[in-house]
Amino acid sequence: MSNKILIIGGVAGGASTAARLRRMDEDAEIIMFERGEYISFANCGLPYYIGGTIEERDKLLVQTPDKMGARFNIDIKVKNEVIDINPSEQEIKVKDLSNDEEYVEDYDYLVLSPGAEPIKPSIPGIENERIFTLRNIPDTDAIKKYLDDKNPEKAVVIGGGFIGLEMVENLHDQGLDVSLVEAADQVMGPIDYEMASILHNHMRQKEVKLYLEDGVKAFEDNDNMTDVILESGKELEADMIIMAIGVKPSVELAKKAGLELGETGAILVDEYMKTSEENIYALGDAVEVKDYVTGNKTHIPLAGPANKQGRIVANNLTGRKDKFTGTQGSSVAKIFDLTVASTGKNEKSLEQEGIDYEVSFTMSKSHAGYYPGAIPMTVKILFKPEDGEVLGAQIVGRDGVDKRIDVLATALRFKKTVFDLQELELAYAPPYSSAKDPVNMAGFTAGNILNGEMDIIHWSEIDELDENNTFLLDIRTEVENDLGAIDGSTNIPLNDLRDRLNEIPKDKEIIVYCQVGLRGYIATRILLQNGFKDIRNLSGGYRLYKQVQK
Amino acid sequence: MSNKILIIGGVAGGASTAARLRRMDEDAEIIMFERGEYISFANCGLPYYIGGTIEERDKLLVQTPDKMGARFNIDIKVKNEVIDINPSEQEIKVKDLSNDEEYVEDYDYLVLSPGAEPIKPSIPGIENERIFTLRNIPDTDAIKKYLDDKNPEKAVVIGGGFIGLEMVENLHDQGLDVSLVEAADQVMGPIDYEMASILHNHMRQKEVKLYLEDGVKAFEDNDNMTDVILESGKELEADMIIMAIGVKPSVELAKKAGLELGETGAILVDEYMKTSEENIYALGDAVEVKDYVTGNKTHIPLAGPANKQGRIVANNLTGRKDKFTGTQGSSVAKIFDLTVASTGKNEKSLEQEGIDYEVSFTMSKSHAGYYPGAIPMTVKILFKPEDGEVLGAQIVGRDGVDKRIDVLATALRFKKTVFDLQELELAYAPPYSSAKDPVNMAGFTAGNILNGEMDIIHWSEIDELDENNTFLLDIRTEVENDLGAIDGSTNIPLNDLRDRLNEIPKDKEIIVYCQVGLRGYIATRILLQNGFKDIRNLSGGYRLYKQVQK
Ligand SMILES: Cc1cc2nc3c(=O)[nH]c(=O)nc-3n(C[C@H](O)[C@H](O)[C@H](O)COP(=O)(O)OP(=O)(O)OC[C@H]3O[C@@H](n4cnc5c(N)ncnc54)[C@H](O)[C@@H]3O)c2cc1C
Ligand SMILES: Cc1cc2nc3c(=O)[nH]c(=O)nc-3n(C[C@H](O)[C@H](O)[C@H](O)COP(=O)(O)OP(=O)(O)OC[C@H]3O[C@@H](n4cnc5c(N)ncnc54)[C@H](O)[C@@H]3O)c2cc1C
Ligand SMILES: CC(C)(COP(=O)(O)OP(=O)(O)OC[C@H]1O[C@@H](n2cnc3c(N)ncnc32)[C@H](O)[C@@H]1OP(=O)(O)O)[C@@H](O)C(=O)NCCC(=O)NCCS
Ligand SMILES: CC(C)(COP(=O)(O)OP(=O)(O)OC[C@H]1O[C@@H](n2cnc3c(N)ncnc32)[C@H](O)[C@@H]1OP(=O)(O)O)[C@@H](O)C(=O)NCCC(=O)NCCS
Repeated sequence: MSNKILIIGGVAGGASTAARLRRMDEDAEIIMFERGEYISFANCGLPYYIGGTIEERDKLLVQTPDKMGARFNIDIKVKNEVIDINPSEQEIKVKDLSNDEEYVEDYDYLVLSPGAEPIKPSIPGIENERIFTLRNIPDTDAIKKYLDDKNPEKAVVIGGGFIGLEMVENLHDQGLDVSLVEAADQVMGPIDYEMASILHNHMRQKEVKLYLEDGVKAFEDNDNMTDVILESGKELEADMIIMAIGVKPSVELAKKAGLELGETGAILVDEYMKTSEENIYALGDAVEVKDYVTGNKTHIPLAGPANKQGRIVANNLTGRKDKFTGTQGSSVAKIFDLTVASTGKNEKSLEQEGIDYEVSFTMSKSHAGYYPGAIPMTVKILFKPEDGEVLGAQIVGRDGVDKRIDVLATALRFKKTVFDLQELELAYAPPYSSAKDPVNMAGFTAGNILNGEMDIIHWSEIDELDENNTFLLDIRTEVENDLGAIDGSTNIPLNDLRDRLNEIPKDKEIIVYCQVGLRGYIATRILLQNGFKDIRNLSGGYRLYKQVQK
Repeated sequence: MSNKILIIGGVAGGASTAARLRRMDEDAEIIMFERGEYISFANCGLPYYIGGTIEERDKLLVQTPDKMGARFNIDIKVKNEVIDINPSEQEIKVKDLSNDEEYVEDYDYLVLSPGAEPIKPSIPGIENERIFTLRNIPDTDAIKKYLDDKNPEKAVVIGGGFIGLEMVENLHDQGLDVSLVEAADQVMGPIDYEMASILHNHMRQKEVKLYLEDGVKAFEDNDNMTDVILESGKELEADMIIMAIGVKPSVELAKKAGLELGETGAILVDEYMKTSEENIYALGDAVEVKDYVTGNKTHIPLAGPANKQGRIVANNLTGRKDKFTGTQGSSVAKIFDLTVASTGKNEKSLEQEGIDYEVSFTMSKSHAGYYPGAIPMTVKILFKPEDGEVLGAQIVGRDGVDKRIDVLATALRFKKTVFDLQELELAYAPPYSSAKDPVNMAGFTAGNILNGEMDIIHWSEIDELDENNTFLLDIRTEVENDLGAIDGSTNIPLNDLRDRLNEIPKDKEIIVYCQVGLRGYIATRILLQNGFKDIRNLSGGYRLYKQVQK
């Protein structure tokens, strides 16, 4: 008895499900419905096609209905929108968009991978031919055509998430003057403020104008431009506007059919990706998942999880019990010359959820400093104060960022601690890393904090210190100190410290800092063992502190 | 009561020990003895300075005695060779090489990090001013000076380990005509033959002449050249010869002092890095370590472990009990345009040690195929047939190889399985990876093998197949088949397979192959579910098979 399986959505989640399904079950009848014209396209590549990095449009089409149909013997119905699900009858209603005819299809199993939709808030003036969102090929074609036909010069991107930032870069690459509007005080929600500050400074260097902590109140057309009117009263003129303030899961169909939604508003599924209906599975951007670190419910729309869930759904539909154990939110993006990446929880979310954590910053070179091209990256790790379990990590840098986040994501997946990071034996040769890899280094430093070898202070606490009871000690060289230092600090270069201990008061708290934290740590150790008690080293050093001030 | 700690050797292991020691113990008296003129130099960078990639000699000196002495308050005695250890008296005898005077120094603790020495076999003619080894700065200076003064044109490098190969590349970069002689049938011992074949082909493309399975019988000078006479009778003319056939641990001092050596001939230490003497610790290239995977004793001279062991020794000397849990041999090297990396065990060593294993090859692009610059890498993983625990991994490719080996090294460290690799949530954006990362892909494929979804055959078994009972099925397109195929195979393109099943015999074993293994897998699944029983897919496909044949 072969099964009849219907799949709604023909891209990341849907097509992955279909492919694995066919490999596991040669006899099943598989029909995949996609309301758009294309299946299996590279959503994630769209900004790069717009920017010209990906030159050929065809490259975006990872599979076509013909090729995929032939290889996998799947009935692929593009331009067919599923408009109703009837779980009790095990039927769906489909509208053929080419002729507007409707028909019914029954199923043994139904799989929902309808994805998500760009959020388009009801701001006055939002319906405007100069305003675009980006989710699929038609969106991309529209933007590309507009760029080619209208040669816009001034773009405003609204929303500083990864799609927004990728669009900032790609429009900038096309020669446009780009402004970014973001309601939060930082871009890139998954990372924390000081890490985002590095991006802010970099984007400003690239002459992108940032409007942070500001929202859009209205769009108003004037002649051949549109005024983007901000909450702050500022008005930005643009002849092209990209709305990228996030996505919402496509749940209408599921809701109408009575499928349960979760607390986040996305479709509720169990660990086998089964919805509240026995014969209906769902996956991808449309579903709610378990936060891998906290176990709480969340909505994280990413391609990796969608593709893997497709495989899991297919396994479960063919008798191979398979669980999805949660999403940790590993992500990476290229922002001009920088790479920003993160995995697990950030400070904001840990605070919100009331979870205790400790933070450490380190700065390490992408590979051995003596081999050409070594570039520093800023590594932030978050871990449990009790046992050092890694809760999250964020890295901003240029080369080698993606490598370190993946190692950290792997350690986090296995619920390992900062002490485990110390032991990792990573592959070393000068063009690739250092004998102590940045990940080891993050582990050493975090371990030192937990073991009480060094107490730290964070950039955000510096300006709140009580001047009268604090001795701010700049342990860098005189030259470095001359180039800029924290107000009110005294400079004693590390190499002189042992001889100048008498210049340091014993009755104040000592805040030591250097450029990145390493020399401050050595100084801390010297002071601690010379009878000074109350010492904290500035984590991430003056460099990080300065990034946030800029 | 402060301790007096003496350290023998001032580079990777010695200097790392000293630095951490001082951080943990401000009061200890620390004296570091180094017989050479330099401490803390970048051994691993030496080939790149010779080749000119690293331009300034000073960059090789990560620390100088002055700077390190000042920062860490360590008494650093360069050009001081320790010539005797007297454990019962807790004394060492030192010879000051600047004036040949000898003196005695007592200790509370002694740390040995004397490293290893290049093996120089007693081949007739080996003492020759055209023959060099490479371990330290003077060696480097000598090679560099010879290159500058003598302008040699033909180099023979003996030994295809990573130092040998780095020298091949760097001498080639200097415009020399380079030959490589290697006694084994392959370069790069840590990887297996078929992976090394990719390197062989690449080096030949670069016009490096390879003499594999051949040894050196003698060196004979003639006029201004030296003849390198091989076991095979071949004679290679050279005006520069690099011996890089491996290193042996520097154990003379330890041996003379009665310290126990291990079965590998290196210094025996326990998991705290303590030798057979209570107050003497040893580390780095001089010691025997535990093979992290098998638990057997081994000798793996690498900088990462040496540096980490330094930290562990310092911890143990300052009351912070710390164990070294073994070396897994993670390594990476740049060989011209290729990157080769490995971690854990290879086939050769697993066979030798009688450990059961399964192997899987996959080929994945460095990042999303539709984003420019995506380049395939060959991934080999070895795992336990019972439960899929990862035993080792090898990768050859260009971009992104170091990233994937580090993720695999991390999984191996945590004793995880190929099924765990499937679940890894690695950071994905088109410039960095694919939604299913190469590591996930290796996990999927290996998992399919273990779960019986697909049986595989390896390249080495193809030529031994019984022609009469085997049906060799090339599932690639006709064009691909025309460009080269395995002898005796029948071509049925995958997309036609379902319609042409009747052309396939039911009474023979079927060997399916495609270019890399993916289509062969899909074909295997189709055949299995259509009543064909005995089917194996060629792991790594025609591409890997062909690499070995070339
Ligand atoms: C511009 C852009 C860049 C991105 N970059 C990255 C990145 O770098 N890294 C990353 O991890 N993720 C990225 N993503 C996110 C990633 O693409 C998604 O997480 C992933 O595609 C989700 O897969 P899905 O199957 O749930 O949804 P989709 O891939 O969107 O597929 C859903 C499909 O279902 C169809 N559909 C919906 N309803 C119906 C219906 N009723 N009937 C028929 N068809 C229907 C839709 O037309 C759509 O084609 C990016 C997304 C975008 C838009
Ligand atoms: C050319 C080259 C390239 C390399 N590339 C890599 C690489 O890419 N990746 C990697 O992981 N590893 C690499 N290595 C290996 C790495 O350098 C070693 O594993 C590491 O240096 C070992 O540290 P060690 O402290 O044991 O020995 P060393 O760093 O060699 O230090 C030992 C020191 O002890 C001194 N000494 C010995 N005996 C005495 C004595 N009796 N008295 C006083 N001093 C003494 C020696 O003079 C020497 O300076 C490379 C090595 C070389 C030579
Ligand atoms: C194109 C698409 C349908 C492919 O799905 P797929 O066939 O499951 O994926 P792949 O082509 O990567 O193949 C993976 C399969 O090949 C197997 N495989 C890969 N290399 C192999 C090899 N060398 N030997 C044997 N098997 C191999 C894997 O094990 C896996 O099979 P399994 O899932 O049955 O274990 C789907 O990925 C898709 O639609 N992608 C585009 C949309 C998208 O993902 N967008 C978001 C990101 S831009
Ligand atoms: C130069 C050398 C002496 C340095 O040793 P080291 O001081 O232990 O190493 P680093 O300078 O990398 O500093 C690491 C320390 O800084 C700490 N650290 C790093 N970044 C930090 C930061 N931002 N904040 C606080 N602490 C930090 C680490 O925790 C670690 O301290 P710990 O071991 O006490 O935990 C030694 O590495 C050496 O000799 N190298 C050259 C030789 C060699 O290794 N050759 C082989 C490879 S080519």
